[in-house]
Amino acid sequence: MIAPDDARHLASWNDGPATASIREFVARVTTDGSPELVPPEERVAVFDNDGTLWCEMPMPIELGFILQRLAAMADQDPGLRDRQPWKAAYAKDYGWLGDVITKHYAGDDSDVKVLLGGILQAFAGMDVEDYQDAAHRFLHAGRHPTLGRPFAECGYLPMIELLGYLEANRFTTYIASGGDRDFMRPVTQAVYNIPAERVIGSSNALRYTPDDQGGSIIYLSEPDVFDDGPVKPVRIWSRVGRRPILAAGNSNGDIPMLQFAGGPSRPGLRLLILHDDPEREFDYVAGAERSLEQAQAQGWTVVSIRRDWATVFG
Amino acid sequence: MIAPDDARHLASWNDGPATASIREFVARVTTDGSPELVPPEERVAVFDNDGTLWCEMPMPIELGFILQRLAAMADQDPGLRDRQPWKAAYAKDYGWLGDVITKHYAGDDSDVKVLLGGILQAFAGMDVEDYQDAAHRFLHAGRHPTLGRPFAECGYLPMIELLGYLEANRFTTYIASGGDRDFMRPVTQAVYNIPAERVIGSSNALRYTPDDQGGSIIYLSEPDVFDDGPVKPVRIWSRVGRRPILAAGNSNGDIPMLQFAGGPSRPGLRLLILHDDPEREFDYVAGAERSLEQAQAQGWTVVSIRRDWATVFG
Repeated sequence: MIAPDDARHLASWNDGPATASIREFVARVTTDGSPELVPPEERVAVFDNDGTLWCEMPMPIELGFILQRLAAMADQDPGLRDRQPWKAAYAKDYGWLGDVITKHYAGDDSDVKVLLGGILQAFAGMDVEDYQDAAHRFLHAGRHPTLGRPFAECGYLPMIELLGYLEANRFTTYIASGGDRDFMRPVTQAVYNIPAERVIGSSNALRYTPDDQGGSIIYLSEPDVFDDGPVKPVRIWSRVGRRPILAAGNSNGDIPMLQFAGGPSRPGLRLLILHDDPEREFDYVAGAERSLEQAQAQGWTVVSIRRDWATVFG
Repeated sequence: MIAPDDARHLASWNDGPATASIREFVARVTTDGSPELVPPEERVAVFDNDGTLWCEMPMPIELGFILQRLAAMADQDPGLRDRQPWKAAYAKDYGWLGDVITKHYAGDDSDVKVLLGGILQAFAGMDVEDYQDAAHRFLHAGRHPTLGRPFAECGYLPMIELLGYLEANRFTTYIASGGDRDFMRPVTQAVYNIPAERVIGSSNALRYTPDDQGGSIIYLSEPDVFDDGPVKPVRIWSRVGRRPILAAGNSNGDIPMLQFAGGPSRPGLRLLILHDDPEREFDYVAGAERSLEQAQAQGWTVVSIRRDWATVFG
């Protein structure tokens, strides 16, 4: 076990203002006698997942899982092969999928609705435990399309070190992701040392169906929670019952969660990951424009992958 | 610290079939080499609150908090004093409130709707952190109307010992209550040693409202989750991401949660608390009739307060 203030905790971070602000904040809220000491049970830290803890380009890892499922459905049922999104999934037509995102940023969500409709049908009627098994197999068998590494090794090493540094300082860490909660759970313990019960995310609606074997919980073909934007603080509160003192994100959808950290009566640290490293990861600000403006205006800590991380992947 | 198998853990339990089934189950899932050994991270135990962990008669403790708030509203606004449920709360007319329950059991929920409508308005617009402060004050200042003891001492000592016995055996305990989640949270650590993040319950809808002080989360005047019946397994899964192996309840609304424990591939223990002790607590089966039938039919463990508990309150 490494001591809480040991430099080895953030070994993959370069010295600089971001690393200094993390160390300074942790010292401020954990040092006995500090006027801003926060008791351990209130040291809650929340992390977005896609683009904050692991890679989300060229497409979110979860989307690969969904497309695999849609393609399998079209394989079974030829009638689906002429309908989007099964058509694109079956033909591996990443052009159509790319256009969905491009149109979304241009304000046209017509194809997003088509895609979401397919996603809801893809898992409707599936048992949550079977779904977790399928997600586990996908995450442990597959490889990232451009990085070539297993999905379970697409976590950012500096962020994994940060989670460990916070745990050593008696923080409790949570994932608060827009991604699907039950998709992430099978790998969060192994990748981040965060157990299933500390994963907050989106979910389709669920229904309990009794039987004489203990019953089962089944996905319905309707959404329940889309855990993004102003929904993030609400879901964090609902799950944790406390206001976090540290939040980390990388996009516009993380702004309310970052604002919520700390609050009127306590210190707060807000980290925004900037993807500016085309050599080792990716270089993009699409979907993060407003969060970068807010970080500038509010003095949030911007973490530049290029400048602040000595190593990106473990 | 008491050893996991020390008899002092269940000191307020009488020897008998209920106590034996608890000890036998815990040994079965925790003893190295047992064919039914369950790893510690999967030892999830869920407990209903009202009537299972603390007293719910002559009315749920939360209802006292709500009535206090409704009376305060009528005190401020005379126009409310002619309208139910403010009229009954303001006049301390427990007859009207008792009739609500009687009519409910007879299948007439017209007054339940009137009461719930008032409850939604009672807290609409309140900040979740202010609400928690108010609940904390109520729970620490008030006394149970017939037992005369502080609300924070209305927990059943044998159940508090059971929670400690399970924790010593590396179970993780959760409250899964039909009561309001944010109302319970201010006392669960002190009474049960269960922290806020392990409290699952009902909640009104919430909205995040940003400001330059970290924003706040506000109750809306609409319900979100009523955590009872088949909703309990769904909310347990959503929060925990695992199927519990132990569940304890005391009413018909707990049947699905009890059925869900264990499941097809693992052992499960289901405890049903029977209120049969008019001397030391209360004697009632209203609202528990079907759960008692199920316990009989499925071989669940019925815990008789009169027979199985040497002491009821600490």
